[in-house]
Amino acid sequence: MTADRLRFVLFLNGVFILAVALAMLLPAIVDVSFDNPQEAANFVTCSAVAGGFGVLLMAAFRQGEVNLTDRRTGFLITVSAWLSVSIVGAVPLYASSLGLSWTDAVFEAASALTTTGSTILVGLDQMPEGLLIWRSLLQWLGGIGIIVMALSVLPGLRVGGMQLFRSESSDVSEKPFPKVRQIARNILIVYSTLTLACAVSLAIAGMPTFDAVNHAMTTIATGGLSTKDASIGYYNSVPIEVVTQVFMISGALPLAFYAVFLLTRGKRRLVEGQIRPFLLILAAAILTCTVWNISQGTAPPTALRLSAFNVTSIMTDTGFATADFSTWGSFAVGLFFMLYLVGGCAGSTAGAIKIFRWQLLFAGVGRVLQLMLYPNAIVPVRFQGKSVDDAVISNVRNFFFLYIITLLLLSLMVMATGLDFLSAISSVAQGMANAGPGLGPIVGPATNFSSIPDAAKWLIVLAMILGRLELVNFFIVLQPWFWRR
Amino acid sequence: MTADRLRFVLFLNGVFILAVALAMLLPAIVDVSFDNPQEAANFVTCSAVAGGFGVLLMAAFRQGEVNLTDRRTGFLITVSAWLSVSIVGAVPLYASSLGLSWTDAVFEAASALTTTGSTILVGLDQMPEGLLIWRSLLQWLGGIGIIVMALSVLPGLRVGGMQLFRSESSDVSEKPFPKVRQIARNILIVYSTLTLACAVSLAIAGMPTFDAVNHAMTTIATGGLSTKDASIGYYNSVPIEVVTQVFMISGALPLAFYAVFLLTRGKRRLVEGQIRPFLLILAAAILTCTVWNISQGTAPPTALRLSAFNVTSIMTDTGFATADFSTWGSFAVGLFFMLYLVGGCAGSTAGAIKIFRWQLLFAGVGRVLQLMLYPNAIVPVRFQGKSVDDAVISNVRNFFFLYIITLLLLSLMVMATGLDFLSAISSVAQGMANAGPGLGPIVGPATNFSSIPDAAKWLIVLAMILGRLELVNFFIVLQPWFWRR
Ligand SMILES: [K+]
Ligand SMILES: [K+]
Repeated sequence: MTADRLRFVLFLNGVFILAVALAMLLPAIVDVSFDNPQEAANFVTCSAVAGGFGVLLMAAFRQGEVNLTDRRTGFLITVSAWLSVSIVGAVPLYASSLGLSWTDAVFEAASALTTTGSTILVGLDQMPEGLLIWRSLLQWLGGIGIIVMALSVLPGLRVGGMQLFRSESSDVSEKPFPKVRQIARNILIVYSTLTLACAVSLAIAGMPTFDAVNHAMTTIATGGLSTKDASIGYYNSVPIEVVTQVFMISGALPLAFYAVFLLTRGKRRLVEGQIRPFLLILAAAILTCTVWNISQGTAPPTALRLSAFNVTSIMTDTGFATADFSTWGSFAVGLFFMLYLVGGCAGSTAGAIKIFRWQLLFAGVGRVLQLMLYPNAIVPVRFQGKSVDDAVISNVRNFFFLYIITLLLLSLMVMATGLDFLSAISSVAQGMANAGPGLGPIVGPATNFSSIPDAAKWLIVLAMILGRLELVNFFIVLQPWFWRR
Repeated sequence: MTADRLRFVLFLNGVFILAVALAMLLPAIVDVSFDNPQEAANFVTCSAVAGGFGVLLMAAFRQGEVNLTDRRTGFLITVSAWLSVSIVGAVPLYASSLGLSWTDAVFEAASALTTTGSTILVGLDQMPEGLLIWRSLLQWLGGIGIIVMALSVLPGLRVGGMQLFRSESSDVSEKPFPKVRQIARNILIVYSTLTLACAVSLAIAGMPTFDAVNHAMTTIATGGLSTKDASIGYYNSVPIEVVTQVFMISGALPLAFYAVFLLTRGKRRLVEGQIRPFLLILAAAILTCTVWNISQGTAPPTALRLSAFNVTSIMTDTGFATADFSTWGSFAVGLFFMLYLVGGCAGSTAGAIKIFRWQLLFAGVGRVLQLMLYPNAIVPVRFQGKSVDDAVISNVRNFFFLYIITLLLLSLMVMATGLDFLSAISSVAQGMANAGPGLGPIVGPATNFSSIPDAAKWLIVLAMILGRLELVNFFIVLQPWFWRR
């Protein structure tokens, strides 16, 4: 591990921290306009302190030559940036008038930034507007960060089979991170446009402007933080639910892949190939849930409305709720738990195992079975009409193993803090998927994460960040050989 | 699919059915000696009917040439034999004075035969002796069947990475099933000796002779059916618990591999390499559970005694209990759930994912991480000092995927019958692992499976048989291309 590389990583963290510090000026402006001078001053102070720290890092570790083409640097930057931004993002929450503990402030900031959307705050409806917009902004910025990472860094780093989506330019050159800036600019344009469209649609559907702006930011990011304790359920409005659903789905589709126009036809087919199965699984889950709710005595129109919204919300890993779906009976609880694992499309802000990995895992089963009967046959795994490299399948299967093991071990640790089996395993599963609410009476959609022990909160923060870093990106940095020269 | 092959499979099923029918004469003799003439007559009648059916199948499908070297035949025989023997084994239970439904009779027989040991019977302490010995005998025979299958059939069929344990003779010749008869004879000797040793030790430890014989048969098979509703807890005896623990562990070790003397030094190292990690995980789990129980207020000696017995029982997939460990608090519930997944050594009667697969899965993680940093490096997965074929790793990872997906989907179906999340997922997990008790107030060690809906019972029967057939052996027979010529 060269000193130059560490210096560069620290320098870049300084850049990210400065960016977050500048972003704190938006809630300050909002607080001024809503006449919360105390809160506005808090944001300005935090911005100055954090910004100063960022500039200090940048100045201390400035270097002549910038080298982004190195894998080790790539892993270190992605891991350290998520951690440092989560902590800096927590500062204004900790320093605010809410009197939060560090644990709660970091939980809320990490939950926002990773687009998870779990909350420990109660009384959102009366909260200062600056704090609300700060959570939404963190979530929106986190969403953009995830897409940039998924498009420009993870494929090059071969994270969990994502080399499947390497753009042609990175195939040819040996650069693992092609065109980061162009990609980031294009994504910013696409996401700003979508967010504006969502905000306008929500306002037309009857949501107050401030709420519409907040919800638009957290919907596009499939984040799910709300300005109301009762989430979208507060508005009790079919038009608002339909608009939210449409934009949650758009957030879980790989729209950004189109926007960057970096893909050749072959790669594009791989990306597009996820959309159909995603929508099919979503439709099947909504239908199943509706039928189940009808069988439990809910009137058919209500069953459809509730199932459509809440299933879409969890399957896209957004996490808004219009009902406490953990009281819908055992089967519904099981179904929502499965949806935590499914996830959205690669290249979106939705988390979890993701559609393309499920496609490859199931395609891989057929191959193993065929080789059992015909051991000497040559059976490639075919995916979207192309045969897939063995290394990709191997990475994806390994990813699945790590995902389940991490889920089980973190859940066991959460159980050691006293949470029951369902609360613990659903908290960790939603965290790793960056979904939002857990299941059951303690961490379900009717309540939130405020009542659980601090140790459990930290474990769930870890789950969120692990999920966002696609696990392997985190685990590789923990290996002793990673740090050897 | 040739008609000849199907004829041969049906003929062999006749042989198995005849063997089970002959085995029914043992409980008849026991019932006579314990003065239960009615029950004895039932066993004789069932034996005659089943035996007649077996002979009929044998006569109808007798063929000149016997061909065991064919893979397709191997898969068909293993699947059909477990199904047909489960059904025939249920006949005397259905016809008995207990008045069981078909569902309950098949559940009990399949649970016995697959060495699961879940029961739907209440009032074991007053049950006719013939029925008790029939359950124990089914379990003991099932245990031997599993070892024979694991040693002679599964490696040749490359089931879930078990080609790792192919004997040298099968590597050289292309025969997938080497020396089935010798292997079966050797295993019979080893297992009879161990069972005798266990029975004598139990009797010395103070268990009545009839109980000792029954428990010896179900301990060696890591089966866990008991002659008492309170299982081993009934005796409240440390010596009995220690003896049982020793023989449960011996049942979960790959002892039979030594017995058959078919292994070269290389293969033997692979087999032996499982023993150390198995014992380490067992010791760690017992220690963790003891510490947890002490932290919950149990006196240290009691905590150790209870943890040692019940953890060993679940980790070896035996399923005896001396306490209702699902009331030990959330962490203990989580720990026992993990133990359902761990399992014993390949080549034993313990089920689940098994030690050698965990070893390969974890070894595979390191390789994937290294390839992320050095994409062009050649990094073989090393296991017990030997580099392992990619096809083995691929099979094992695929096995893990199928195991988890099957667990989740079967659990979801069980939840649809109305069982809560923990009851459902623990029932299926214990079934697939062939462990015995579930977790929670409904299916935990304090109760049994008698109260759950019939549909849930059938799903758990499916889980038991799927687990015993190492999943892929079952799934391959469901593929349309399997049946094509
Ligand atoms: K979310
Ligand atoms: K068992």
